[in-house]
Amino acid sequence: MVSRALVKEFQRILGKEQVFLEEIDRATYAYDAAVLEPVLPAVVLRPRSAEELGRVTALCHENGLPLTVRGAGTNLSGGSIPSSGGVVVLTTALNKILEINEADLFAVVQPGVVTARLMAAVEAKGLFYPPDPGSMAVCTLGGNVAENAGGLRGLKYGVTRDYVMGLTFFAASGETVKTGSRTVKCVSGYNLAALLVGSEGTLGVVSEIILKLIPLPPARRAMMATFDGVGKASETVAAIIAQRIVPATLEFLDNFTIRTVEDYSKAGLPVDAAALLLIEVDGHPAVVAEEAEKVEAICRQMGAARIHVARDAAERDRVWSARRSALPALAKLKPTCVLEDATVPRSKIPAMIQALEDISRKFALPIGTFGHAGDGNLHPTILTDRRDKKEWSRVEAAVDAIFEKALELGGTLSGEHGIGTAKSRFLEKEFGRGTILFSKKIKAAVDPHNILNPGKIIGE
Amino acid sequence: MVSRALVKEFQRILGKEQVFLEEIDRATYAYDAAVLEPVLPAVVLRPRSAEELGRVTALCHENGLPLTVRGAGTNLSGGSIPSSGGVVVLTTALNKILEINEADLFAVVQPGVVTARLMAAVEAKGLFYPPDPGSMAVCTLGGNVAENAGGLRGLKYGVTRDYVMGLTFFAASGETVKTGSRTVKCVSGYNLAALLVGSEGTLGVVSEIILKLIPLPPARRAMMATFDGVGKASETVAAIIAQRIVPATLEFLDNFTIRTVEDYSKAGLPVDAAALLLIEVDGHPAVVAEEAEKVEAICRQMGAARIHVARDAAERDRVWSARRSALPALAKLKPTCVLEDATVPRSKIPAMIQALEDISRKFALPIGTFGHAGDGNLHPTILTDRRDKKEWSRVEAAVDAIFEKALELGGTLSGEHGIGTAKSRFLEKEFGRGTILFSKKIKAAVDPHNILNPGKIIGE
Repeated sequence: MVSRALVKEFQRILGKEQVFLEEIDRATYAYDAAVLEPVLPAVVLRPRSAEELGRVTALCHENGLPLTVRGAGTNLSGGSIPSSGGVVVLTTALNKILEINEADLFAVVQPGVVTARLMAAVEAKGLFYPPDPGSMAVCTLGGNVAENAGGLRGLKYGVTRDYVMGLTFFAASGETVKTGSRTVKCVSGYNLAALLVGSEGTLGVVSEIILKLIPLPPARRAMMATFDGVGKASETVAAIIAQRIVPATLEFLDNFTIRTVEDYSKAGLPVDAAALLLIEVDGHPAVVAEEAEKVEAICRQMGAARIHVARDAAERDRVWSARRSALPALAKLKPTCVLEDATVPRSKIPAMIQALEDISRKFALPIGTFGHAGDGNLHPTILTDRRDKKEWSRVEAAVDAIFEKALELGGTLSGEHGIGTAKSRFLEKEFGRGTILFSKKIKAAVDPHNILNPGKIIGE
Repeated sequence: MVSRALVKEFQRILGKEQVFLEEIDRATYAYDAAVLEPVLPAVVLRPRSAEELGRVTALCHENGLPLTVRGAGTNLSGGSIPSSGGVVVLTTALNKILEINEADLFAVVQPGVVTARLMAAVEAKGLFYPPDPGSMAVCTLGGNVAENAGGLRGLKYGVTRDYVMGLTFFAASGETVKTGSRTVKCVSGYNLAALLVGSEGTLGVVSEIILKLIPLPPARRAMMATFDGVGKASETVAAIIAQRIVPATLEFLDNFTIRTVEDYSKAGLPVDAAALLLIEVDGHPAVVAEEAEKVEAICRQMGAARIHVARDAAERDRVWSARRSALPALAKLKPTCVLEDATVPRSKIPAMIQALEDISRKFALPIGTFGHAGDGNLHPTILTDRRDKKEWSRVEAAVDAIFEKALELGGTLSGEHGIGTAKSRFLEKEFGRGTILFSKKIKAAVDPHNILNPGKIIGE
């Protein structure tokens, strides 16, 4: 699909050393973190300026060449898997923090900036960029925008879309589109920035991102509540919210996940607990003290066996890094780890957790469940071996059952991992035919040659 | 444009008494709150169910009939002014609050619900719906969604788009489109809800809105700081934000506005002050006490002549209702009141206020300036008489100069009033040709007969 002449053209724009054609290079960018078949791109490009990015996009458009933009490839729904014979465009060289504006509380970044790097840079100035996806140490802000990445702090602070004030992106044709503003309020024109967020690279190629910052909360307190029954833990989540307390983080781990994480991280988690809640409140010191006390009292009333408040920052960090190791820990147990993120209104968490236990039993599959219980976003994780065809068909049936249940409970297919290719066939079930048609019309209008990450979200 | 047969069809769908054809009825819906020529629609329709709304939309589509949805008509940029010979669809009968979910913190409403009614209903349950446009006592949530309405609390709490979790709307063809979710996190499919917010009725007809609610702040404190120089007041705004304090409200009034408001409301405002800041902090009582003290200290350091803290709720309400009367008070002075909302990054407020004084002098026009200084969203208000052609041409030149300056300072054409027809010719200047083209492609794709509020935002 990529002719010799076109390769030469790419080399002319980017320089020879930024155009990768060897199979080993292409194989490196053939997959992402989803359990899906890798797809070899024809060529991998590494632009070093927005201008190069735009020229490459226009060239793909002119030649009808599928283009998949890739940050760190931590995508969990196949959004970064390229099209066969297509182009992968790396954002790794577009990694500049262009501005941190302390007076007006925003930052301007290129798409390849690693999330944790921006966080650290703004924290050094007493500011806060809250969205903290599990992969924040390696993932990029461009990827976060493409996937509308969530994280542990979604409950109180929202997700990526709540922080995108403006974008500059290239339309498929290579034309520059600016949208949004450096002002808190902006209603000039269509909110194209919001449309681009979560569109998984199918509507435009982002070259610059304006992100809202907020003051860093001056205090925080983390605690761990241990429960001898899963039901008690999940009902505690609802009880906390019912008291009008919105913790920064409210995480759930079932026994299977607790044991696996403890094996992996030796953080001192209670391996005999049926379930754990990890809770952090933050804000003004007086509020933190009061809310921590209230949360502790609620946990106790709801029957927590033990409540442990982190004594210092080191202990707090140990607990959170244990929680953040849940996925790698689970992934070590079996060759294939299917991480789902069906999401329900938070009051339906007890029903969803019960349903996950039933599904685990029915399909005879180990399912470890953890996740952001406070915002109804659970990560049931099925451990399996994809090469075992018989078991794999049970896994597929279990995943279907998880989605069915989430939708039945008024939830959604994906809280934060995206639709990609992994879930696009379920989308009509959630929204109906009208939504798919409307979405396809937009896609076809702005990308008539269907070059921008084709097949993702709304299918081919 | 509307045939007898079509009128009969509308009457069959809605009932005769919900189809208005008399000139007096049509004239009532020919204008909105913007200073623009009224345009007579051919017929005014009042559907009483979502189903009727969908059928009416489909019928307009089939007949190529322009359709403008209208809530309370408080629009300030011409977005509710119909097309000549077109249809006005009233949402006044679609006014049910369908659900207030206390466990999951959301509300589901029809588009015709008045904003203040939802606010009161959720406050009675200890919950909070923050977006508070100036017209909140009469405007509708459907209109707020169409315009992405802001308000006084935008600084701390954001605007309408920050609270829209999901929408159901009719595509131009009458097909139902669902988007978003009742869950805090949702990345299923394109974020069509966010695209619809602020699209001024040009992309779909909203029938149901899911709105995020938050816990009601338990305490609040309002204060008024008086300054003998405009510069001192505007620099104080930046100084407060620089101290990492984000008040719920941070309003500015210049002397002209103060005197006019005091004449109108007799609220006891200091008529000899060069400028006033009205500031409210809210949240936990300890935080409120601390932040109020800090804000007071900053105002004093910045040279405030006098600082008065509201002693009780009654006094607080008096101050805010005086502020909310700024527009009607100014509007009484002269036959025509041109209310602008050019918006700048908040650190540029002093420069913008200076520029407004220069523009007032240059074009020999009285400009009263007030507004949401904390989020950079000022409302320079030009008092004039549109029938005076010579003066009116100076007004038009002054408005152009205001936009030029806002863009030059890194701001935007509209913070919260929308583009409508009033500002669409300036849009390319803010964003460039690529943005207009991209927007037009979307509009043409989802509304091929161009029936949905044609001409608004991106022009004809």
